[in-house]
Amino acid sequence: MIDAIRSAAPSDMNGDDAAVLSPSSFASKTVCSTDLLVEGQHFRGDWSTPYDVGRRAVVQNFADIEAMGARPVALLLGVAAPPELDSDVLTGIAKGIADEAGRWPAELVGGDVVTSERLTLSITAIGELAGPAPALSLSGAHPGQTLIASGRLGYSAAGWALLEHFGSPDAIPDSEHLQTLVDAFRVPSLARARGTVARSTGATAMTDNSDGLVVDLSTMARASHVTIDLDKDAIAPDPAVREAARLLGRDPMEWICQGGEDHALLATTGADIPSGFRFLGRVHKQGAEPLTIDGQSPTFTLGWDPFGEESFGSDSSDRE
Amino acid sequence: MIDAIRSAAPSDMNGDDAAVLSPSSFASKTVCSTDLLVEGQHFRGDWSTPYDVGRRAVVQNFADIEAMGARPVALLLGVAAPPELDSDVLTGIAKGIADEAGRWPAELVGGDVVTSERLTLSITAIGELAGPAPALSLSGAHPGQTLIASGRLGYSAAGWALLEHFGSPDAIPDSEHLQTLVDAFRVPSLARARGTVARSTGATAMTDNSDGLVVDLSTMARASHVTIDLDKDAIAPDPAVREAARLLGRDPMEWICQGGEDHALLATTGADIPSGFRFLGRVHKQGAEPLTIDGQSPTFTLGWDPFGEESFGSDSSDRE
Repeated sequence: MIDAIRSAAPSDMNGDDAAVLSPSSFASKTVCSTDLLVEGQHFRGDWSTPYDVGRRAVVQNFADIEAMGARPVALLLGVAAPPELDSDVLTGIAKGIADEAGRWPAELVGGDVVTSERLTLSITAIGELAGPAPALSLSGAHPGQTLIASGRLGYSAAGWALLEHFGSPDAIPDSEHLQTLVDAFRVPSLARARGTVARSTGATAMTDNSDGLVVDLSTMARASHVTIDLDKDAIAPDPAVREAARLLGRDPMEWICQGGEDHALLATTGADIPSGFRFLGRVHKQGAEPLTIDGQSPTFTLGWDPFGEESFGSDSSDRE
Repeated sequence: MIDAIRSAAPSDMNGDDAAVLSPSSFASKTVCSTDLLVEGQHFRGDWSTPYDVGRRAVVQNFADIEAMGARPVALLLGVAAPPELDSDVLTGIAKGIADEAGRWPAELVGGDVVTSERLTLSITAIGELAGPAPALSLSGAHPGQTLIASGRLGYSAAGWALLEHFGSPDAIPDSEHLQTLVDAFRVPSLARARGTVARSTGATAMTDNSDGLVVDLSTMARASHVTIDLDKDAIAPDPAVREAARLLGRDPMEWICQGGEDHALLATTGADIPSGFRFLGRVHKQGAEPLTIDGQSPTFTLGWDPFGEESFGSDSSDRE
């Protein structure tokens, strides 16, 4: 198993009691985040390939690093796998991890392999926050700022709904739009280095859309003691999301507002909107509610919780 | 679950998308290592309390950080737990983590909680390697150096053998020595800061005894292209280990040579033996075998593998 992983995701930093990461600049801080992915809960072998699972594991962790305004540099992987697991599965996961991490670039620098009945992955991402400027926190939003976003909204939830409804990828009607949504569920699209770009151009708060747009922004608003007002036009569903909603008879705004795991970066800035971001709303003085849409209470306020998971540490400070 | 963990192991660094760790000095490097612990495989609820499990998880990870000559500063915890799990179990684990990590001092800065049938913990330790001196690697041993150790040998294996043989802690004959061994299996004893002391006093190679003394030192010897000769008198079993061996009719040298998970630090140095370490053997030019005992081939050469696990990244580079 180890050989399969190491040959698919090679790193010179791998091979001692622990990996040593050298900072690329003086005064840099270390940023870290961890996630667990359990087969049947966070991924399904019949919905995603092992390669997809590896890429997705990287995206969801690197989004947390980017959301601090930091640069992902390394990953640690823990694998608990049934002894009879085909080594191709681990090779696929490791290859997905290596390819996705390589985009930043970052490397798989170490890990652990144990046996367990159920395939379970633990992924830890390590990032570097260079220079003296503070990290982009949940509590850094200020009244008067602009809310900006990098990444898609509602795609992952729509893709999940399609797979749920049709039961298998092959049963989903042939459509480029629908395929995009399913692909987005399998591997959310995370643009590289938007976190560091936002931090270096004046953003002060950032998070990623992992638990649902309304929930994640409400968490930011409470931590910052502000009200965040989403612009209704700015969060209007894309054509792909609308097509899936029509097909399934659903309200696309449910996926936009409650869908998580798009890992879109959501930031607030008092400066111009930086490259790769778009306008999403405005930050106001703290009002009666943490989050509004065009000044109104949102209709869809639940969090994204298809499998009943929780996370802490890590982006859930003020969440109810 | 999250509340239980956060109140038992509080940290101001916990509560955003990712934790931010500030280095305590310029030019410091980040060191990281991860482990998975699966209930029934790496710990048993009838042999260890949740508090013990939490402490042990910290020790085995911090030993990897210390073995690089670094200072542990933070931990990330992933918990996959059955929904019906008593929250006292998680509180106990988190309290054990907080207390053991607090000795360094280090904090639990983030994590993730998901559901799974089998209680599984992922622990990631982050350490800081201050100053420009290199880390203590597996490949840094040189002929002419002294092999030194900090920590016990054979205790964890003897404690495990007692629990295996008698089936339950209560069935083990009442004896201070035997109790010490069982305690050492539950929570190996890791002296604080011996890694940084060794690095600052001239040690050049270090690892910890996690997979067995002979296996771990053979790995170091191969990586360093040397032969390590253990001094037979220096590795003679302590009275507690001898008492357990007599009781079970075993050869105590089997536990000394093949027993792992004592997490004793094993280093080579060309200077005086630093505080907290003792003489264990000598480093010679590469001979026919990577490891000898008083110049002879060791009788017990297997690795410590009570549950059939593997680890990579992380201390298994040249291991067969």
